[in-house]
Amino acid sequence: MAKVTRPIFLLTDFGARDHLVGQVRAVIASIAPAAAIHDLTHEVTPFAIDEGAWLLETSLPVLPANAVVLAVVDPGVGTARRGLVVAAGDRFFVGPDNGLLSPAFPDSQREGNPSAPPGAPEVLELCATQFRRPHVSATFHGRDIFAPAAAHLANGLNYCHLGPDAPGPVLLPPFLGTPGEIGELHGHLIHIDHYGNAVTTIRAAQLFPSFALEAAGHVVDTHVHTFADAPHHVPFCYADSSGFLAIAVNQGHAASTLGLRRGDPVLVRAR
Amino acid sequence: MAKVTRPIFLLTDFGARDHLVGQVRAVIASIAPAAAIHDLTHEVTPFAIDEGAWLLETSLPVLPANAVVLAVVDPGVGTARRGLVVAAGDRFFVGPDNGLLSPAFPDSQREGNPSAPPGAPEVLELCATQFRRPHVSATFHGRDIFAPAAAHLANGLNYCHLGPDAPGPVLLPPFLGTPGEIGELHGHLIHIDHYGNAVTTIRAAQLFPSFALEAAGHVVDTHVHTFADAPHHVPFCYADSSGFLAIAVNQGHAASTLGLRRGDPVLVRAR
Amino acid sequence: MAKVTRPIFLLTDFGARDHLVGQVRAVIASIAPAAAIHDLTHEVTPFAIDEGAWLLETSLPVLPANAVVLAVVDPGVGTARRGLVVAAGDRFFVGPDNGLLSPAFPDSQREGNPSAPPGAPEVLELCATQFRRPHVSATFHGRDIFAPAAAHLANGLNYCHLGPDAPGPVLLPPFLGTPGEIGELHGHLIHIDHYGNAVTTIRAAQLFPSFALEAAGHVVDTHVHTFADAPHHVPFCYADSSGFLAIAVNQGHAASTLGLRRGDPVLVRAR
Repeated sequence: MAKVTRPIFLLTDFGARDHLVGQVRAVIASIAPAAAIHDLTHEVTPFAIDEGAWLLETSLPVLPANAVVLAVVDPGVGTARRGLVVAAGDRFFVGPDNGLLSPAFPDSQREGNPSAPPGAPEVLELCATQFRRPHVSATFHGRDIFAPAAAHLANGLNYCHLGPDAPGPVLLPPFLGTPGEIGELHGHLIHIDHYGNAVTTIRAAQLFPSFALEAAGHVVDTHVHTFADAPHHVPFCYADSSGFLAIAVNQGHAASTLGLRRGDPVLVRAR
Repeated sequence: MAKVTRPIFLLTDFGARDHLVGQVRAVIASIAPAAAIHDLTHEVTPFAIDEGAWLLETSLPVLPANAVVLAVVDPGVGTARRGLVVAAGDRFFVGPDNGLLSPAFPDSQREGNPSAPPGAPEVLELCATQFRRPHVSATFHGRDIFAPAAAHLANGLNYCHLGPDAPGPVLLPPFLGTPGEIGELHGHLIHIDHYGNAVTTIRAAQLFPSFALEAAGHVVDTHVHTFADAPHHVPFCYADSSGFLAIAVNQGHAASTLGLRRGDPVLVRAR
Repeated sequence: MAKVTRPIFLLTDFGARDHLVGQVRAVIASIAPAAAIHDLTHEVTPFAIDEGAWLLETSLPVLPANAVVLAVVDPGVGTARRGLVVAAGDRFFVGPDNGLLSPAFPDSQREGNPSAPPGAPEVLELCATQFRRPHVSATFHGRDIFAPAAAHLANGLNYCHLGPDAPGPVLLPPFLGTPGEIGELHGHLIHIDHYGNAVTTIRAAQLFPSFALEAAGHVVDTHVHTFADAPHHVPFCYADSSGFLAIAVNQGHAASTLGLRRGDPVLVRAR
């Protein structure tokens, strides 16, 4: 039976202006010419590790079962921060040890539970020099360390060859609203999307039967199922396509209309 | 003989900031891992169905004969608007029933002729739940309904399995200048391109031997064959690479220089 | 043995707003459906031939050995400027004859040495009409001439069939700092990247043991190995991932902070 090359999905803050994504693709194509390479996005806010992790987490339900994810938002590149490969199920996640790869881990580990649950992913440090580019730059490990590792994994390399166990990876807490006073949930804005919709860290499944959302001095108490249900130019809440509470304006740009910014705190109150 | 997987071309208003395109690619890659996936563009002006249709129409002459086109500009997502697959020649077009797929139809149908001409495309409604994702969100049918349909078509699924006949699809009129007074053609600006050139709905083939164009209060009466023929910084008309009349400024940005905006009316007068 | 299809890498100033890249991909996919198509970048500053050449040059070390590069920054499209294919080693470069393909040539040729060194690339003019699209537009040779040529090369066409020898291609001088007074190097800013870092034409290998850089009225005399070594919000110099001297602000946007623009002269002085 023919060996199947794994597909590789890229998630970075590299943007499109430069040749950074192109060079990553070139390195992969040199090592794994048969691998399909797909962009999840390269427009993570520069250096925003938490936003990158959220974009990765919400994409996990649709990624192929055998995907290799190459994720790079890496303000600590060139320092002592480790490079990791995480083996979770039949998928691999390659990237810096700064929390970006948190979605590969179960919530119980991300909440600081010291004992990993059964089936928790294995984590190795990317040390094996034969699976790096011959010269490793100080500022572009995406090209020189992570891309070659992802390409070799796509080719079927046993991940154990990439390095030793890496205990204690940096993990972000789960994306989840935090209960406050009775009838309150606290969260923040994690992502402003292309249409200007502002997505919160609060999951729709956490919500009270009736509620109002407060953010940036605005109170939003209209809730709809989909955009066309909302009057034009009125702010409203909806559950986004990944099940997170979000703020939008039908056919408008909520973030600029309401002055919403990534990181703004969000309060949900039962009514 | 080996079965050939069809290539899939994506055209959306999803932009690059988010994981929307990436999630569509992930869904396709899970179902049709051998399918080549190409981006036509994801920068259709948000919600601009007519611009999306124009970008699709002008790309038809170069698309592979066996292409699957997945087109999503979908302000009515989550409402009763239908999802369609259009079978035209050996190509398939998948997307919302809002006019975006009009270029798959002959002009006579788009002009409102009730009887479809011989060879007109077949249109089915995307109803078959086994070719959707198990959970269909209210706001992202591109991922949950259209991408799986396109992927199965790429794999060779007989399109008849996707759903029943869909009579009366929404169709936009052909992109064409409209005659006004004698010696006049009316149109509008359908697209502002990356260089700031403004493309009209008037076809170069419709033009008078000698003419002037009026838009946004400007009269442009210089016509050139290609950019280098024009003096720098002077507005001029030319036939764009798809045969539509367009306004440019050599090495300048016509739209911002002249204050041109998508939708602005355009008048061409014989001289 | 199965014939290997060459991968194609695209480098243009086409941007993402339009269907230009999509149409190039469609043409290639029609002729060479098995070819992997990768974007190096499409965000070269419009018409900036030298920036495109620099982005290409710095990508050469990572491109697959058998790559076909399709490069289009083409302000002279539709004029008498030639279209070229350059055969260098086992790679091919396809694009306009305006200097953009200079990185395919050795420095000695780019410095104006009339006799090509041994192993210099062969250069042909793209004349063969059977390897163009049937109708060639005046403004989009990327789609109508260059893309078909690249696709046929990816399929294994002998490049000699594409046209006759093209003597005297336009070549840019090497990207290199120019010595001035003793202890001085002159260069300019060739690229502002996604993070706002400004890259110079001066190679780190040319630098004095101790130096200060002057650009746009600022003197920068902090040098670091990688970003995390720098204090926040202080401008510094570093060697970028391709070995060129660059100016950055850790977690900031150097170009807007310091008012740096592409083309600004740069002076490096020994200290």
